[in-house]
Amino acid sequence: MSSLTSLFSPGSVALIGAAHTEIKLGGVVLKNLLKLRGKVYPVNPKYDELMGLKAYHTVKEIPAPVDLAIIMRPAPEVPEILGDLEGKAKTAIVVSSGFAEVGEGKLQAEVKRIGHKLGIRLLGPNCMGIFNPADRLDTFFISHERMKRPKRGNVAILSQSGAIMASLFEAIRASRIGLSKAVGYGNALDIDESDLYEYMFNDSETDVVVSYIESLGDGRKFIEKAKELSGKKSLVILKSGKGESGSAAAYSHTGRLAGRYEVFRSILRQFGIMEAGDFDEMMDATKALSYQRPSMGSRVCIITNGGGSGVLAADECMRQGLNVARLSEGKLTRLKNMFPHFYVLNNPFDLTAQVMDEDYLTVLDEVKDNYDGFLVIALPNVMGITERLAELMKDFKGRMQKPVVFHIPTDGISRKIITRLEKTLIPVFPSPERAVKGLKALLGQGK
Amino acid sequence: MSSLTSLFSPGSVALIGAAHTEIKLGGVVLKNLLKLRGKVYPVNPKYDELMGLKAYHTVKEIPAPVDLAIIMRPAPEVPEILGDLEGKAKTAIVVSSGFAEVGEGKLQAEVKRIGHKLGIRLLGPNCMGIFNPADRLDTFFISHERMKRPKRGNVAILSQSGAIMASLFEAIRASRIGLSKAVGYGNALDIDESDLYEYMFNDSETDVVVSYIESLGDGRKFIEKAKELSGKKSLVILKSGKGESGSAAAYSHTGRLAGRYEVFRSILRQFGIMEAGDFDEMMDATKALSYQRPSMGSRVCIITNGGGSGVLAADECMRQGLNVARLSEGKLTRLKNMFPHFYVLNNPFDLTAQVMDEDYLTVLDEVKDNYDGFLVIALPNVMGITERLAELMKDFKGRMQKPVVFHIPTDGISRKIITRLEKTLIPVFPSPERAVKGLKALLGQGK
Repeated sequence: MSSLTSLFSPGSVALIGAAHTEIKLGGVVLKNLLKLRGKVYPVNPKYDELMGLKAYHTVKEIPAPVDLAIIMRPAPEVPEILGDLEGKAKTAIVVSSGFAEVGEGKLQAEVKRIGHKLGIRLLGPNCMGIFNPADRLDTFFISHERMKRPKRGNVAILSQSGAIMASLFEAIRASRIGLSKAVGYGNALDIDESDLYEYMFNDSETDVVVSYIESLGDGRKFIEKAKELSGKKSLVILKSGKGESGSAAAYSHTGRLAGRYEVFRSILRQFGIMEAGDFDEMMDATKALSYQRPSMGSRVCIITNGGGSGVLAADECMRQGLNVARLSEGKLTRLKNMFPHFYVLNNPFDLTAQVMDEDYLTVLDEVKDNYDGFLVIALPNVMGITERLAELMKDFKGRMQKPVVFHIPTDGISRKIITRLEKTLIPVFPSPERAVKGLKALLGQGK
Repeated sequence: MSSLTSLFSPGSVALIGAAHTEIKLGGVVLKNLLKLRGKVYPVNPKYDELMGLKAYHTVKEIPAPVDLAIIMRPAPEVPEILGDLEGKAKTAIVVSSGFAEVGEGKLQAEVKRIGHKLGIRLLGPNCMGIFNPADRLDTFFISHERMKRPKRGNVAILSQSGAIMASLFEAIRASRIGLSKAVGYGNALDIDESDLYEYMFNDSETDVVVSYIESLGDGRKFIEKAKELSGKKSLVILKSGKGESGSAAAYSHTGRLAGRYEVFRSILRQFGIMEAGDFDEMMDATKALSYQRPSMGSRVCIITNGGGSGVLAADECMRQGLNVARLSEGKLTRLKNMFPHFYVLNNPFDLTAQVMDEDYLTVLDEVKDNYDGFLVIALPNVMGITERLAELMKDFKGRMQKPVVFHIPTDGISRKIITRLEKTLIPVFPSPERAVKGLKALLGQGK
């Protein structure tokens, strides 16, 4: 069993810095912990009871050892609290900020030393901690009202930043995908991305891992674990702190050096590990990979009812190294005989504003063996596009196990079609270029 | 007066190919034309009356010359119809497709020759035509139900593609900006982007021109007119057909050669004309420029309440050539004395999850003379961020005439803040990187 089990699935939790009200962060976390399947020990010197639970004045009073201690006290108090946890906690999350990210590197080093000496694995400091809905563990200091939790699903988030965590939660909800686990690991003084990759390698609930990194500790270990993980599951990495300004910002944020980005990037490429260029790319790849299994190949078929959108998609394919391959003349002639003369049957296949739902399927069925992935653009402003398209696509997806993504501009009349397509696990993207990026994530990985 | 006045503001319009029902495209256009301040002559050999208007069986029967004829008949009929318009129409929109975009270059050349001979300026073929709400002109063959028209505003759209037009309409509505005019000009056999730039140069309603181009006719004239226009107004160009696949697609779509993209790009750069990289960039620039006047400079101040989002923004600034400059030590010390020690007061200025609305203003007021543009990131998941922030920003914007943009992730609790900020003409973007791209559009143009 991984040494991180007591972190993700604790049977008992102590909360040092618990509060009686949700106006205080220690109250928000306590409220979130009330749902845990397991024992919770709130610690606060001023209270005998907090939110209906018996409270303890000091760590020493806690009557039994716990799997996990959550520390929410000012940074200078943390070393002493950790010392008191000797023999009392297997793991601890240091939520508090005020360490290396504000220049208090010495204090952080001391906490690290104490954790190591006492055999307590540490997450943080300056972090959000763990959200693990399967075990009803939620250590986040933001209430469910302020930050809605996504439904359960197959995506795990590993984020050094709480801000990016909050943005990812929102984006994941909007993308109609679900979460298996989420970890905000902050300054990463002990447990880092490599440890978390190892844990996710074995986590049966997780198919896709999104990893937001500001700075790396042990580069060699990172590469080893990232390679291992992305050989089995989908791993999407967004590395920030790329430039000079970014680097300085990442350093203040987590107190770790951001490293030379170019070196990092070339290593990822060398090992075929997927890197997103920005937040939207990270989300587009995550959405596509959460919906569908990746497969091999680079030949893309674009079918559209609007020429311009098809051209933008073809441009993006070029930038992404995907091949908008032409059909053979024989096949093209066959297709041309099936449609009006003003349909532009090339690749992109432009079915024009006169398109009917069925036309998409006619083309897809005809060319399905000639391509590795399919991008369908349906501009819903014309009369021939209806909700039936979603049903027809459901059938097609059933009989053809290759990646299929859609671009539909999000507006009033298209919302129903989008919802129905996404229920069928066909992801829909808001621009032609973003749809291509989603498809790209599904091609050439070959898990 | 520009020769395109009869195209944009016709006193009288003939519709050749009018229909009695909105199930037909000629019926949709007729219905849209009913709102015109001016005389409308529907032409259809089978009807004496259409939608309450007297109908004419042939072009020859139209009793008076018209400013604009709209032709919606199959491509092979167009030359004869145009011939019949001799002395009857100043300008014509050829809506019909079936010309160079499907290999019928000869037919298109013939139409061009006839128009030239008869002195009739031509828009199209294979196009959407004109939307000019000031004169209640709407020649689009998509109903208002299927494609909602944006409110009136200061942005003009010039699009070779009807698909991109439809997507832009939706994006413009979602961005809470408004339209002055929209032109879908398709294959551009006569009137092209250069003519339209010249018209927009003089159009008092238009401050921002969005130009979607698939292929250029006269490159020299294009450069001249683009330079002229972008010297006076904001011009945002998205050129597609960049790669080999894209080029082929653009050719089939409009029948014009897409040209070597690299040459085009270097010329735009040389003359300081703004080019968007993809659809989202085009919209982000358009939104920012519609909300605020551009100004000079490249020093950007990032204020955030989430470290990670600040780092991503700083990275994007680097990619965009913007300078996330540090404050002088003296100013930094002053700021540090105003805030708790765990605020990371650098640039990005990270006010952390403990932020209060007022903190943003304290920083902004302190540093406003040190920077050229401001990016404010407000992650609304924390208690200190409320709707008051929008009011405080309104005051700040009033006393400081420099570009200010926001990034707020779009979710349930943030919608009200976003609406209020945007009423104050502070644009809000859905990711840190897109906010930087919006700010970039506002900096270094100096109109």
